[in-house]
This record gives sequence, C-alpha cells and structure tokens, in this order.
Amino acid sequence: MIGGGQLARMAHQAGVPLGIRFKLLADTPQDSASQVVSDVVLGDYRDLETLRRFAADCDVVTFDHEHVPTEHLRALQAEGIAVRPGPDALVNAQDKGVMRAKLDSIAVPCPRHRIVADPADVTAFANEGDGYPVVLKTVRGGYDGKGVWVVDDEAEAQAPFLAGVPVLAEEKVDFVRELAANVVRSPSGQAVAYPVVESVQENGVCAEVTAPAPDLDPALSDEAQQLALRIAGELDITGHVAVELFQTRDGRILVNELAMRPHNSGHWSQDGAVTSQFENHLRAVLDLPLGDPRPRAKWTVMVNVLGGDYPDMYHAFLHCMARDPGLKLHMYGKDVKPGRKVGHVNVFGDDLDDVRERARHAAAYLRGTITE
Amino acid sequence: MIGGGQLARMAHQAGVPLGIRFKLLADTPQDSASQVVSDVVLGDYRDLETLRRFAADCDVVTFDHEHVPTEHLRALQAEGIAVRPGPDALVNAQDKGVMRAKLDSIAVPCPRHRIVADPADVTAFANEGDGYPVVLKTVRGGYDGKGVWVVDDEAEAQAPFLAGVPVLAEEKVDFVRELAANVVRSPSGQAVAYPVVESVQENGVCAEVTAPAPDLDPALSDEAQQLALRIAGELDITGHVAVELFQTRDGRILVNELAMRPHNSGHWSQDGAVTSQFENHLRAVLDLPLGDPRPRAKWTVMVNVLGGDYPDMYHAFLHCMARDPGLKLHMYGKDVKPGRKVGHVNVFGDDLDDVRERARHAAAYLRGTITE
Repeated sequence: MIGGGQLARMAHQAGVPLGIRFKLLADTPQDSASQVVSDVVLGDYRDLETLRRFAADCDVVTFDHEHVPTEHLRALQAEGIAVRPGPDALVNAQDKGVMRAKLDSIAVPCPRHRIVADPADVTAFANEGDGYPVVLKTVRGGYDGKGVWVVDDEAEAQAPFLAGVPVLAEEKVDFVRELAANVVRSPSGQAVAYPVVESVQENGVCAEVTAPAPDLDPALSDEAQQLALRIAGELDITGHVAVELFQTRDGRILVNELAMRPHNSGHWSQDGAVTSQFENHLRAVLDLPLGDPRPRAKWTVMVNVLGGDYPDMYHAFLHCMARDPGLKLHMYGKDVKPGRKVGHVNVFGDDLDDVRERARHAAAYLRGTITE
Repeated sequence: MIGGGQLARMAHQAGVPLGIRFKLLADTPQDSASQVVSDVVLGDYRDLETLRRFAADCDVVTFDHEHVPTEHLRALQAEGIAVRPGPDALVNAQDKGVMRAKLDSIAVPCPRHRIVADPADVTAFANEGDGYPVVLKTVRGGYDGKGVWVVDDEAEAQAPFLAGVPVLAEEKVDFVRELAANVVRSPSGQAVAYPVVESVQENGVCAEVTAPAPDLDPALSDEAQQLALRIAGELDITGHVAVELFQTRDGRILVNELAMRPHNSGHWSQDGAVTSQFENHLRAVLDLPLGDPRPRAKWTVMVNVLGGDYPDMYHAFLHCMARDPGLKLHMYGKDVKPGRKVGHVNVFGDDLDDVRERARHAAAYLRGTITE
C-alpha cells in the first residue's frame, strides 16, 4: 500500500487475520501506518524509481491516498505491475474535471457544473442557473475541504484561480443531507454494497456517520446502491469506492465526490458490519471473494476525534473507557494538534439516540470541548 | 510482549486501534507475530540480559507464553519493571504442582491429585481412589497435550519420569464436557467475565469452542464465572485468565488447567464479543478500564484450522471465502505442516447447528479432509 496514513494503518490491521503480507511505502517512520506495519519502505511516492523498487515484489499495489501521479501509475501498469484501482479508474478520483466529464458521459446525476476560465466566467456560470453562491473547486489536490470555496460574488471568486490549476464550478446544491453509498468491486467483477449511510460534514470535513442512514426511503437507498455499483462497474474500479451524495430537497440524489480507497464514511464498518471496508478493500484488490457487507447492529454511529488543546489524551482515554465499556476507539497514533483528525469512535446498538449520544460524548470529551 | 506466536500477532492487531506501541521479543523474523509487528527485537527469552534490554523502555511487559523462567521475572520485577501477570501469579501457570497446591489452599475444586515419586507411587495413588487409569503430567513444560499421559497400569507409568521433572498424578475425571471460564483482571482490581464456553479437545489440543456453552445451567455458569473471578483475585493475576474446567457427570465443575494470557478458548471473542480477549488483555496489563465482554451474537463457534497435506492453502481459501462470505478467517502466517495449528475460523449467528456446520466445514476444507 502506498501512503502511510491512518487508512493504511487500519488496512494492515484488517489484513493480519487474512495472513496478508502487507508492505508499506511511507514518508517517515512516524507515519500513522509506519508505527504498526513490519515491512515499511521509506520514500517519495512522486518518484517513479521509488515506486518501481517498492512494487517489484508486490502481488498488487493499492493506495492510502489519491496523490500518486497518474503517469507513474500508467508506467507501473505498462511494466506488468497490478495497480488496483488502475490509473484509468483512479484518475476520476484525482481530477474532479475528469470525474465530472466521465459521470456525464454515463448519465450519472451530478450538480450542474463546468470548468470555468476566470472570475468573470464564474459569474457567467452563476447566471446560467440561479446565480450566486457558486462552489469552486481546484480539479486536483483538494481533500477534507481544502481546494473548495463557496463564493458569493465575483470578487470572492478570485482566490481559486491563484494556484494555476483548472477550476471547476458547481451549483450550490440545496440538499437536506449528505449520504454515502459505499461499494467494493474486485477485478473479476464481484461487487458488494454496504448500507447507505448518512454523513455529517463540519467545515468540509466528515464529522459523523450514521449507518444505515435514518429514515431513508428504501427506493432511494436502492437507487443510491445501484448508482454506486454502476459507477464502480463503468469506471472499472477495483477496491472500495465511496460515492458521496447529496440528497436534495426534492428527493433526488446527486454525486458530490468519489473516493477509490477505504473512506471515512466507511469507518463504521469496522465494528458495525460483518466485514469491514478495510478487509473488503484488501480482498478486492487481491481478487479474493468478498466478505459480507451487512450490518451487525441496528445502528452504528462513527464520530471523528479531532485534536484539542491538550496534546496528552491519556486521562481523557481513561475517562471515556471507564464511562462506556462498549465504546470502540480507533486511534491513529498521530500527534495531537487542534482540529487534526487523530482517531474516531464507533458505537453500536439498538437505540439510535443512545448510540449517537455515546459516540458524540466520547469524541467531544477526547477533544476536550466537554469535561464531564 | 514476550513471545512471537499467534497470540502476540493477534494482540498486536487488537492494540492498533487503542494506539498502543507494541514491542515484541521474538525468536526469529519468521515468527507469526514478527511478520506483522513493526517493533521487533530478536532474542532468547531465557536470557536475563536479553529480557532486561528488551524491557528497559517498556511501560509494561506481558507474555505470549508461560515459558519465561520465573526467577528472571522476579529479577525484572525487583528492578522496577512492571511484569503482568507478575511472577507470583504466573508461576501457577508455569508449574502444575504449584498451581494445584495453591488452588487447594483456597478451596478451589480440582481433580484428586498429588505429586508422585515413581511408577509404584502412581499405583499407590490409583489405589487411593478408583484405580487406573491415572493422568500423569510433568509439572513444567507441557502444552497442547505434550507432557500429559493417560496411563492404564504401572508399566505405562514409566515414561513421564524419564524427563527428570516432578510428576503430578490426577484422577481421570468422568466428565460430560469441558468448559472454560475466561476472565480479565487489571492491577487496580477491575475484572470482567466472558460467557462460559464449551471446549472440545482432540488429542489434547483445543479443536472447537462454542460461546456460550449450550444448555449450561445458569447456576453452574454463575458458579464457573465466580470461581474464575475468585482465582484471578486470590492469585493476584493481571490480564486474561483462562480457567479450563471439567463438567462432571454429577454436575460439579473441577479446574483442569489455568492459562494467564489470551487463550484458544477465547478466540471466539474476536468476532463474537463486544471486546475481544486480546484487547481486554492489553487494557488489563496497561491498567486501562476494561471493555464490555458480552457476546454480540446468540452463538459464536470457533474451530481451529490445522495443517493438512497441502502446504499451499490458497485455493482452499478462495473456496471457503466464496462459499461463506460471513466466515471470519484468522490465519497465523505459519508454514503448513500436518496437524499444526495454522489458524482458526469464527462463525456467528442465531442458529447453532448452522453456525457450527459452517465453521467445521471451513476448517475441514482448509485442512483438506473434505474437498467439497
């Protein structure tokens, strides 16, 4: 796996019972995954020679993030290395312009969008619809709210163009909530769909996920799963795919983002599903038969743990573990910095209010925003 | 953790989400745990200097096996190193003579037993009860059926004395089945009890575990849990304790063996309990609040996977994973040798017959004793 973040850390953990020999390409020995994986190579994922040497004895190469240059992936693939997902699929998660064009070509419902040339063109785009506000995104390099702007007028529309990267304009969707339809697909074409979840974002970062999405019309749930499976198939994606969706006020679903790796919206599955997204991602990229994606509990709620003002969380851990013996902690081994994602908690059970309260309480206590 | 076997491998896996920095003392880089742990020291656990150097930067030292010399543990403890379980507790898992004497002193029901001097003394022991057969055990060094003999006469009673280790004689208990009462206790005295399980042995090796034990009288279940908690407390054990029990034909329970580490009879908890024995063992030895030991499913069955005649299990994996997407595989990364424990499978669900059939089928198919 290329990339030493928490997704690689949790993928390694999920691979241990399968007997998978997990090799990691990471930046530093302090990376989240480097701390727990036995076979770590340090190097720069932007360097083709490093990638070649790393991949030479791998059965398959997969990813913790989407930042490996597409041309390097094509080179590796041309040399006979199994890259999963492959570059032709992955480019859709790397470049939002390519993704929108591809989804348009297969008639997947998306927010109104087009590439814009300059601030005046943003105003033109706005006027083609209901006017400002407009969402602007750099087509490459964004994540967790970075590279995304919601602008109210042409003056505010200057900033996104400063990076010199093409800019995509999208309508600001009047959504009632965000959903994620997560599926896993293997090279031989087997696919499984997780229950559609509700995801709550704060400042562009996933904050909370409820599985399954409460009060979701079964027809819309089916539609979302079918849509995600169709995208996985049409784009020939292998591994875990997160299709982030807007549920609109008028009852439609529109694709917001695609991720082709384990995803924050699937962390609930570690404790809430028969087979976690991490295990199924590994099964898929190795073309092993996929595991059962069904939920094990009526409700599972995941809340991200963000760093607070106190770098040492030890006493907060003691409190949370003692208060709630059913709490499932997932810490990433990262230094605590204010606002940084340092872990998440999962709680499962029959009573949604109770489950949600427990998960939120633990995350807030660990961050230090509550003290009892 | 000292010892690189599968228990250390699975303990590391369980420690990843807690953010535990796991350091391993193993024999070789090929050991089951060495394959997956980042921080591995190679060395001989029988050498005090090696243990000292290994433990110097550990918050706490715990164990994958019971073979570290008791005097070395006492030396480490005298030097201020937190050894959990401590040597005064662990000696009861290392020396069956010490264990029986200790359990007698606290009035724990055990099979009739005493240390015997020679084969003639075995006959004397037999005649003090119902005669032969008699069970003979070397007081140290036995595991998985090794160091245990069931003898029918004085001639057969020669072999156990050849090793020059004291020999313990025990009555051959007329049991209806074997149970295990597993508990976890922390240094601060908090303790939790897992449901009592039924364990089936084949050739002295744990073959299958059903959680909870079917048709167990609730009073007997309570008695077994209370007994295990009392043993953990009286012996001042920290960490996971497996109390292996005989359920006699006349409705009593007698203690067969004690283990003070994660144990084969607790593997079901990885997929069948809210908190696995591995996570709770780590929580306990680090004196963190313990996790909920309750079952997540009505039934969970664990069956050990033994090696068969085919060293390459890959195609058997494909078959088993495809046949049963709910199967939870736990492989140890060991070379396959006939009869060697190389992994286990867990299956959970509402229907015991179905759950048991699925787990047995997978283990038998992986071993190669069935081919469809």
